[in-house]
Amino acid sequence: MTRSPSPSSAPQHALSPWRERLFRIIFEADTPAGRYFDYALFGLIVLSVGVVLADSVQSLRLAHGGVFNQLEWFFTALFTLEYIARLVCVRHPWRYATSFFGVVDLLALLPTYLALFVPELHLLIDVRVMRLLRVFRIFKLSAYVSEYQSLGRALVATRRKILIFLSVVMMIVLVVGTVMHLVEGAENGFSSIPTSMYWAITTMTTVGFGDITPKTDLGRFISSAMMLLGWGTLAVPTGIVSSEMAQQRRDSLPPPTTRRCHECLTEGHLMEARFCLHCGAELPPP
Amino acid sequence: MTRSPSPSSAPQHALSPWRERLFRIIFEADTPAGRYFDYALFGLIVLSVGVVLADSVQSLRLAHGGVFNQLEWFFTALFTLEYIARLVCVRHPWRYATSFFGVVDLLALLPTYLALFVPELHLLIDVRVMRLLRVFRIFKLSAYVSEYQSLGRALVATRRKILIFLSVVMMIVLVVGTVMHLVEGAENGFSSIPTSMYWAITTMTTVGFGDITPKTDLGRFISSAMMLLGWGTLAVPTGIVSSEMAQQRRDSLPPPTTRRCHECLTEGHLMEARFCLHCGAELPPP
Amino acid sequence: MTRSPSPSSAPQHALSPWRERLFRIIFEADTPAGRYFDYALFGLIVLSVGVVLADSVQSLRLAHGGVFNQLEWFFTALFTLEYIARLVCVRHPWRYATSFFGVVDLLALLPTYLALFVPELHLLIDVRVMRLLRVFRIFKLSAYVSEYQSLGRALVATRRKILIFLSVVMMIVLVVGTVMHLVEGAENGFSSIPTSMYWAITTMTTVGFGDITPKTDLGRFISSAMMLLGWGTLAVPTGIVSSEMAQQRRDSLPPPTTRRCHECLTEGHLMEARFCLHCGAELPPP
Amino acid sequence: MTRSPSPSSAPQHALSPWRERLFRIIFEADTPAGRYFDYALFGLIVLSVGVVLADSVQSLRLAHGGVFNQLEWFFTALFTLEYIARLVCVRHPWRYATSFFGVVDLLALLPTYLALFVPELHLLIDVRVMRLLRVFRIFKLSAYVSEYQSLGRALVATRRKILIFLSVVMMIVLVVGTVMHLVEGAENGFSSIPTSMYWAITTMTTVGFGDITPKTDLGRFISSAMMLLGWGTLAVPTGIVSSEMAQQRRDSLPPPTTRRCHECLTEGHLMEARFCLHCGAELPPP
Repeated sequence: MTRSPSPSSAPQHALSPWRERLFRIIFEADTPAGRYFDYALFGLIVLSVGVVLADSVQSLRLAHGGVFNQLEWFFTALFTLEYIARLVCVRHPWRYATSFFGVVDLLALLPTYLALFVPELHLLIDVRVMRLLRVFRIFKLSAYVSEYQSLGRALVATRRKILIFLSVVMMIVLVVGTVMHLVEGAENGFSSIPTSMYWAITTMTTVGFGDITPKTDLGRFISSAMMLLGWGTLAVPTGIVSSEMAQQRRDSLPPPTTRRCHECLTEGHLMEARFCLHCGAELPPP
Repeated sequence: MTRSPSPSSAPQHALSPWRERLFRIIFEADTPAGRYFDYALFGLIVLSVGVVLADSVQSLRLAHGGVFNQLEWFFTALFTLEYIARLVCVRHPWRYATSFFGVVDLLALLPTYLALFVPELHLLIDVRVMRLLRVFRIFKLSAYVSEYQSLGRALVATRRKILIFLSVVMMIVLVVGTVMHLVEGAENGFSSIPTSMYWAITTMTTVGFGDITPKTDLGRFISSAMMLLGWGTLAVPTGIVSSEMAQQRRDSLPPPTTRRCHECLTEGHLMEARFCLHCGAELPPP
Repeated sequence: MTRSPSPSSAPQHALSPWRERLFRIIFEADTPAGRYFDYALFGLIVLSVGVVLADSVQSLRLAHGGVFNQLEWFFTALFTLEYIARLVCVRHPWRYATSFFGVVDLLALLPTYLALFVPELHLLIDVRVMRLLRVFRIFKLSAYVSEYQSLGRALVATRRKILIFLSVVMMIVLVVGTVMHLVEGAENGFSSIPTSMYWAITTMTTVGFGDITPKTDLGRFISSAMMLLGWGTLAVPTGIVSSEMAQQRRDSLPPPTTRRCHECLTEGHLMEARFCLHCGAELPPP
Repeated sequence: MTRSPSPSSAPQHALSPWRERLFRIIFEADTPAGRYFDYALFGLIVLSVGVVLADSVQSLRLAHGGVFNQLEWFFTALFTLEYIARLVCVRHPWRYATSFFGVVDLLALLPTYLALFVPELHLLIDVRVMRLLRVFRIFKLSAYVSEYQSLGRALVATRRKILIFLSVVMMIVLVVGTVMHLVEGAENGFSSIPTSMYWAITTMTTVGFGDITPKTDLGRFISSAMMLLGWGTLAVPTGIVSSEMAQQRRDSLPPPTTRRCHECLTEGHLMEARFCLHCGAELPPP
């Protein structure tokens, strides 16, 4: 990492000061303005999701449907402005638009517009709630950020084991589903192999809805074996995740911040860092 | 900690001897009188809760309703006397009244009185059972006290991880609930988004009541995915708590006693302690 | 432990040779005769339990009831003879009769006799299956014995933690059951507090029968909270047992044998032991 | 391990070059041809299973039954040719035919032929899906192979503990099933002891279908105890598997390859190995 003689010398793709400030307010939470912005955003997201929930209840919709509709357009307008602001104040709008949060922010807007054409879709406004993943930063989230990053790392590190495990589970589900379809038959609810597979998953994961249940003795015997198998198999993902988390605990890094690199949009750079460790660009001062 | 030349010199806020003795009987369990008091208290609490349980069964109430009512007033009178005794024999009554046990003791009394105005509330006498948390001391509880304190510490230490986890779960529940409401619709039981969220929690936690079940193929497919997700996700809190308990095990302290400080009402001071390690006040001899 | 000059000098309570041999056949499995006895015993127990199972099925009883009855008396006669043989060949019959296995062996006999007076009780012959715990010795059970002893030790070592945990669970069940009884009421199935507690246990353990389900919005909200709580709480006993088993793994002893002391009836003495480490009596040679 | 002066000197049971090449394509995946073969195989297996699934759905069968039938014969023909090819290109056909994968491959073929005589059996073509266990090699499976081998080793190492555990569970299920059959009786659904055992397994594994539920107070009380027991018992297999996996993690070997020995058909030999470590035969070069 080369050191620039002074932090205020402009690198090649500098943003104008007002865009710089907008960036700090919207994307970061280390300044008072940034923090208030996040509080307000959090409140607006929760309110807008609440309106969609209320609107889905028949009785409430009949009573206040018009108000709900206006509120939904109000929120959508606000969020559209915010989305445009985000696009404006980053150096590489396209990189933001294709990042995870960029996609979530867009999906949070589209349903209301699409609903003009396909009315039922407006309920997908609820996807907006995933924006809340972003505003976790408010609550002293240096710690939160490292906590769920550590969990995320644990999951990623064990993804091969999890994939193997899921594949074996699906095979068992397929074979047992087929056997139960043969044994019980359509008159007992096991009307096709996919339906029997749905029953098998219900049983193996110990959910046990009870909408389909075995009636024959052989069917009940096979079910019992499957229940014991599913019960014991629960130990496997638990063992995988537990040992991985214990491993993570030993390797855990010091808690990062919410400092964000303008070039590659990664966050979590240390307080003393002057350059982004992913792409080498100079970081704005904390 | 400064040492007083003799343990019997009276500090500033001394209690009269009879209040001192009352304190030892009621709040501590290291003397025979204290122990008998706790046994009696335990028995009375269990009996009074048993009366409320019996009173809720239609057949038993018709047969013995009057007797139950009288017993409830008898117990409430006893517990009121005990509560007043507690307030009297501590140095800082307000501190006791606002502590966890102080609030529980008050909530254990109120329902009977409130029931004079709102009859159904008398069932909340059951809250009285939480007083049993206090009388765990009877059963050689030095060990018990440290055991559940260690568990409590484990939970507190991991509260951030648990909070993140619950938030993510609620988001998944909200999004899947919305999708199932769209896919299945009111005619299949998914009458509103909150109802669908209730179904989603039922499924994800593998409880699976079966009062609402998906009927469409797409709905069943989404359910299957959710069941597998919930099944695997169970591994996460287990992993969190397991690794934290293993950590606790390594750091565990030697088992404390039930010695209680008169000033700050904390208990668990070591047998050889002369002063409270929280507030510095002189402890009565063990 | 004092050493006797020669292993064949008779201690005070010696058994006659044939009783000694009977002891080795019945109680130990290190000789061919002992092993065959155990195989035969295992087979007879399984057969007798199978007869009881078959007898409970309406259709099979109508067809073969008489044969079943005769077989049951045949088995009971055999087992009674065996029980008498056990009493005869130990030095302290009373000690055997009051040990765990002694009680199980007696309970395995009584139902058939009691059924002469109370016909339905004959089904408790199934308790006989617990005798199978004894015949695990057949299958290279030095290892088995140490395996489940280690599990038993893990459970005993954590009994305080488990007791606390169960007490707290029962308190939560009581309070939530009371609240749901108030909120939902008898018309929704929550007919009394004990019934609501049954529902609460069903929900917290994620079994979820579905015979009683909440219908009101508030009730469903409380259920959701309880389901999430129960789901997370499952992590606690798992964490307790897991960390204890890891501890046990580190402290595990070398696998013992099935050598049994005549005086105190404990088994598992090492191959080179000459005296019982519990009571000091001289052990018969391996 | 003795070193041969040149890797191309023919050992005793050499295969002709074209059979050698066929072996590499079919059994190994380290060459491009081998990899394409596996991709094609994977696709064909998935398609053939998909046809069976579709054929089980009443509506789809009525529409396209004839096409499905033709496709099934086409797939079966292909797989039969492949099976014969496998038998031809190994040195010890009998060893392949009796190995796990050999049996699976045969079971994948038989149903279609048997269905000529017993029509319903053709659904067992689904067993074909177990062949997918083989083609996991495609996806950079050196890692996968070691992952599930490590899981397999963990299960094998703990098989004694698991066997004990299952036996104790079955005993509890038998005894509780008998008691519930006595207490509830046939009019409440507990029509025989085997049926009650099915209910007991449903409850203990927390599946809770709800097709049979206790109605009497005593029955509900016993159920509650059983639910709490099953809930806590879930901790046991989890603890077993977790501690075993942690153990495995410490002993894990470097990831093997898919190199296969012609003599004993074991795979996973290291890249630098010249001789099979199981049987000593010379390995073909990687």
